[in-house]
Amino acid sequence: MTSQPLPRPETSGTPTSSAAGTRLDPWLGSYAERTHGMRSSEIRALFAVANRPEVVSLAGGMPFLDGLPLDALSQVAASVVAERGLQALQYGSGQGDQTLREQILEVMALEQITAHPDDVVVTTGSQQALDLVTRVFVDPGDVVVAEAPSYVGALGVFRAYQADVVHVAIDEHGLVPAALEETLAALAAAGRRTKFLYTVSNFHNPAGVSLALERRPQILEIARRYGVLVLEDNPYGLLGFDRDPWPALRSYDEDGVIYLGSFSKTFAPGYRVGWAVAPHAVREKLVLASESAILCPSNASQIAISSYLSTCDWRGQVKSYREMYRERRDAMISALSEHLPEASWTVPDGGFYTWVRLPEGLDARDMLPRAVTARVAYVPGTAFYYDGTGADHMRLSFCYPTPERIREGVRRLAGVVSGERELVELFGTGGGASDDDVVSPAPNIP
Amino acid sequence: MTSQPLPRPETSGTPTSSAAGTRLDPWLGSYAERTHGMRSSEIRALFAVANRPEVVSLAGGMPFLDGLPLDALSQVAASVVAERGLQALQYGSGQGDQTLREQILEVMALEQITAHPDDVVVTTGSQQALDLVTRVFVDPGDVVVAEAPSYVGALGVFRAYQADVVHVAIDEHGLVPAALEETLAALAAAGRRTKFLYTVSNFHNPAGVSLALERRPQILEIARRYGVLVLEDNPYGLLGFDRDPWPALRSYDEDGVIYLGSFSKTFAPGYRVGWAVAPHAVREKLVLASESAILCPSNASQIAISSYLSTCDWRGQVKSYREMYRERRDAMISALSEHLPEASWTVPDGGFYTWVRLPEGLDARDMLPRAVTARVAYVPGTAFYYDGTGADHMRLSFCYPTPERIREGVRRLAGVVSGERELVELFGTGGGASDDDVVSPAPNIP
Repeated sequence: MTSQPLPRPETSGTPTSSAAGTRLDPWLGSYAERTHGMRSSEIRALFAVANRPEVVSLAGGMPFLDGLPLDALSQVAASVVAERGLQALQYGSGQGDQTLREQILEVMALEQITAHPDDVVVTTGSQQALDLVTRVFVDPGDVVVAEAPSYVGALGVFRAYQADVVHVAIDEHGLVPAALEETLAALAAAGRRTKFLYTVSNFHNPAGVSLALERRPQILEIARRYGVLVLEDNPYGLLGFDRDPWPALRSYDEDGVIYLGSFSKTFAPGYRVGWAVAPHAVREKLVLASESAILCPSNASQIAISSYLSTCDWRGQVKSYREMYRERRDAMISALSEHLPEASWTVPDGGFYTWVRLPEGLDARDMLPRAVTARVAYVPGTAFYYDGTGADHMRLSFCYPTPERIREGVRRLAGVVSGERELVELFGTGGGASDDDVVSPAPNIP
Repeated sequence: MTSQPLPRPETSGTPTSSAAGTRLDPWLGSYAERTHGMRSSEIRALFAVANRPEVVSLAGGMPFLDGLPLDALSQVAASVVAERGLQALQYGSGQGDQTLREQILEVMALEQITAHPDDVVVTTGSQQALDLVTRVFVDPGDVVVAEAPSYVGALGVFRAYQADVVHVAIDEHGLVPAALEETLAALAAAGRRTKFLYTVSNFHNPAGVSLALERRPQILEIARRYGVLVLEDNPYGLLGFDRDPWPALRSYDEDGVIYLGSFSKTFAPGYRVGWAVAPHAVREKLVLASESAILCPSNASQIAISSYLSTCDWRGQVKSYREMYRERRDAMISALSEHLPEASWTVPDGGFYTWVRLPEGLDARDMLPRAVTARVAYVPGTAFYYDGTGADHMRLSFCYPTPERIREGVRRLAGVVSGERELVELFGTGGGASDDDVVSPAPNIP
């Protein structure tokens, strides 16, 4: 045999030590194609600063957990290990705990979903469900249709699988049926392969709107006509401020919709428990994909959630969240009216976010460093588009800060906007848009 | 705009109901290329049967947890929520909890690894680390070099990313340096792109062997010379029966090795906490990939493990596991000597598995249904090869059943082998190998 030594990629000199001091990446030439799209964004670096206590963060999507009954939950955690420890600490089913899957049906019944426990796949947060669905369906170059704007974490997944995302317009009633029809028709005419329509149907992240009841069957009819699967992502559906939940898209169509749910916003994200409900054959693929990705979801987490659902007043907890977030929404909207009348915004009737359009000529991304300097943070609209547009918008979240802090944050933001407008009047629009458009999902902006 | 309705793929007639009764998959035409390799194997169906209590399963890789101090662990679980609940129940860092990453350094110090907490990425079991590393490095068609045989769950991941796995021979001292050199030379000569060498360096799954100390620098030197990254998967390293842990490959080379560790075997798998240690730039990619896949690992799980490490005698627990598994290894080996002298096997000095070569002419896969009928289960060797070979071997695990059950299992297995040999003598070898070779990883065979 002859050996043909190859140099280690991207290094020179002695291989073991050359990269250590310089921080050069000796494996730069070895990454997969998909990895080249992964990068840490400037925005993320700013958010590291924004997490300081003196900054009012209207950027994060973390739920506010201080109202949780920690004593009762501590008891739950103790009994999970004391009474069911040999199961909780062991490997479990790849599809998820049977009892929890039955309980998830009760949760989904609030949105008129009827399903069988076999249809449910438990995942490590609904983010993992997004990853698995994309993994199962998307080849590089395939089209995913998504709202404009769309959840940043979903766009990150679609990018990781090298999908081509085509945005469809929304208005204050959610996805616009005529716009969807037009887009799917154009894609079909161009011979493009559309794998699914990704939609946040309730209390949209980031736009704060919900898909109107009368539009739901229309959207499904259009998707069905074009042979396009619907991926309904619904972490906020139970968190309506002034109304009971609307029927999920999945409640109209069990063969054409994959539904994603989560306990992260209605209970707590720390256990990382979400789920997918999918048509039978798709569900089998999702389970196989999940076993390859993580073997199985955590039994300890699943049994803790299951025990919480059966021994605590989870409906009361959801009600309490709804009231708390409504008060914060009210604080946000009244502060915007008071301090930022030159902007416009959506008035969400549930969820965590409002979507703010800046006065003409302002660029939310350019403005962010100055906002952080003024001790307030938000997410620029560009994060929610695949194509770098959206700089005229920002997402403000009202979930985590107290009403008082929200008002203070908006007051600071108004000062920044005001200064920015003066600059624009003096010097014109700032240009200088970086290429740093779609940020990866980060735990502090879910 | 003109709409161009397309039929829903693979269905005819009315789309909403056509598939419901027949279990036809309406989305069959929509899956990604990678999904076509995902399938539920016949072996998995058999294992569903093998999990019945009357069957002695020598198939599973579940640790035996009955010796864990559940009362103390229940206290740990309670205090995690009572004292640190707002952190444990919240989203966390994508890279993992800082304190836990520092404690992981203490665990790895037992194998002579020195690293910085920033080098560690906490994952949802080390299976997720396998998935992330493969995601970051492997394009379809890229080569991964792996031992022959190799961990079934790793082969499943490599398949999911459409890698081409090339096996390299091992012997009783682990990976054979000359065989590795020959393989890498041939791949380089053929212009193939080898992304990494995957190796289980200690108490190999399934082969039960460890990479000899003197071979460790040799293997690293060869890999370095060919510019091939080493992926060292080490869930069992602390579970040696008669010796302290050997230095990990990572302890020799911090730029050329990605190391994977896990608490699943040294403590418990139910929290799903594993980790990767990677060169700086690679680690950044792994964090971004993990955030896309799951946002962040579970804070509740991480803090529970962290609290266990700081308040319980984890070293004593590892020692107790070592003694228990040694007793079971002894039971396995003595039962094999007594009942199956016509076979040959490795004598592991740690870990969970022995690798058994069947008498000439027997096929472990063909024999499995008859073994399950005789109330004993194992994993056929074919599961551990990418190419369908290995039918002359089987993996027997001694981790979960008691010594008495292990002896009974081997006794039953000997009866099956004996009957099988009679058949082979009468009718020749059985042929009939199915195409069902590489099984997906399943939670019960990690």
